[in-house]
Amino acid sequence: MKISNNLFFGPIDNLNSQSFFQILIIRLIFCYDPLLKENNLTNLTLIGLGLHDENGISLQGLEKAKRATYVFAEFYTNYMPAIKISNLEKLIGKQVKILSRKEVEDHAQEKILIHAKKYPCVFLTPGDPNIATTHIDLRLRAEKEGIRTSIIHSASISSAIAGATGLQNYKFGRTVTIPFKSTSISEIPYENIFENKSRGLHTLALLDINSESHLFMSIPEGLTIIIEMEERLRKRCTTKNTLAIGVARLGSPDASVKAGTIENLQRFNWGDPPHCIAFPGKLHFMEIEALKILCKADPELFEI
Amino acid sequence: MKISNNLFFGPIDNLNSQSFFQILIIRLIFCYDPLLKENNLTNLTLIGLGLHDENGISLQGLEKAKRATYVFAEFYTNYMPAIKISNLEKLIGKQVKILSRKEVEDHAQEKILIHAKKYPCVFLTPGDPNIATTHIDLRLRAEKEGIRTSIIHSASISSAIAGATGLQNYKFGRTVTIPFKSTSISEIPYENIFENKSRGLHTLALLDINSESHLFMSIPEGLTIIIEMEERLRKRCTTKNTLAIGVARLGSPDASVKAGTIENLQRFNWGDPPHCIAFPGKLHFMEIEALKILCKADPELFEI
Repeated sequence: MKISNNLFFGPIDNLNSQSFFQILIIRLIFCYDPLLKENNLTNLTLIGLGLHDENGISLQGLEKAKRATYVFAEFYTNYMPAIKISNLEKLIGKQVKILSRKEVEDHAQEKILIHAKKYPCVFLTPGDPNIATTHIDLRLRAEKEGIRTSIIHSASISSAIAGATGLQNYKFGRTVTIPFKSTSISEIPYENIFENKSRGLHTLALLDINSESHLFMSIPEGLTIIIEMEERLRKRCTTKNTLAIGVARLGSPDASVKAGTIENLQRFNWGDPPHCIAFPGKLHFMEIEALKILCKADPELFEI
Repeated sequence: MKISNNLFFGPIDNLNSQSFFQILIIRLIFCYDPLLKENNLTNLTLIGLGLHDENGISLQGLEKAKRATYVFAEFYTNYMPAIKISNLEKLIGKQVKILSRKEVEDHAQEKILIHAKKYPCVFLTPGDPNIATTHIDLRLRAEKEGIRTSIIHSASISSAIAGATGLQNYKFGRTVTIPFKSTSISEIPYENIFENKSRGLHTLALLDINSESHLFMSIPEGLTIIIEMEERLRKRCTTKNTLAIGVARLGSPDASVKAGTIENLQRFNWGDPPHCIAFPGKLHFMEIEALKILCKADPELFEI
């Protein structure tokens, strides 16, 4: 048992009124803080929220969040189109503190770790935690301070892309991200798609986002960059007639998955973000079937 | 409105007694089956159960399963160490019909599709659905019969491996499966690890399972096969001194993640399945930090 440093006004501001008074009474009578854990048990659990809205969290993740003293979240590593923080707070039964990139990357110490040293905390992230480098960094910093960390995994575009398109998971090569155009265009995504293709492998291309300025690259924008690269490097890897698959809002009830030529997909109206693209490598006959049936590809595309 | 072919003894055997009698009364009085949906709404939803036990299902997946008339499940594509079917049935509120590989692959028509044509059905799978070819095949067969299908994604080893080890997700090349030894050993996994490594990429190696005979390849067994390949092909890709990471029971509270030389990992006591292995490619300094801190790698391994 340890006495809280901040016995009466400790982390109970994020509880509902009933729990607030229960904990206050225990603190007053027993000089003991039921929210405080022994140091060797304090921890930081990263919990994935999945792809679409607050209902993508697993039962295990929700249970852990309910038991935490503090619940943090970030929404800058990915875009969850339909998440409602008020619903998430209702599910968990406590306030969710949303942190910006700057707060997580530059001020983790005072925003998160100081609490996680004393109290069980959870950190909610879109998709599956630790796909983003920023989460690994946070976890390493916590562990270096003696805070035990763990992850409760959830759905991620990295594995969901196989199910959504019918392309076989073990045939995906490395994933690429197509960044927004800056002064120069990076050749890396194109080179990686080319390398994967030359080994017969598929490529998942994630599209850049800038959540702070609410900018999300669309499928046509991503394809335009890839076509520009093709025109510059001319490896006949992604021409206008190359087959690709656009995937919009995966995991949502109005998800859109469509295979066609790049030219085709550039003209299609994809709707709201997030978007991503799959560039197929060598196709197995069952994958061709899946592209026709699940991704509405024109059968003529596969005729020799 | 449609009258069920099987009005009194239709799919109500999997309900609790209260719902059973409610539905029976509605059927008797109105000659209408409330479980039956209009044909254009009937569907088959594949729902992922995640990595460890029944609490890996998302809230969205659970809600969908509760609303389904029939709930099917398979546990032959992967092993979920702690799943309790009775708990799963309690969560969903109805019977879960577990199907064998033979039933799904050879008898999908009479076991699943015949019901999904009339009633909303869900099919629960370990991990994230459609990572396994057998799920894509089921989905294609359903769609060909006019049954609308969809997926509710969940955690998969394919993306969780990045979080568990701290290796960066976008640096993983193609995934391999190390099969049980038969008359000849396949060289494909070794060749793929070599190809990934020569591009600086990491490899996730899944280990074969035969759930019907309850056989699960262990990390030491998988490594022994890879060492045998090394001795045969001699590309200096996976020698006894090569760094690898063993991952056992990912997603469970007693998960074990350990980096070390292959020789090291072969001697380690990994406990219960499922196991898998990651073979790192070129390491970034933050990945090295992660291997030391999260995967308990000996710091001497990284000294030059």
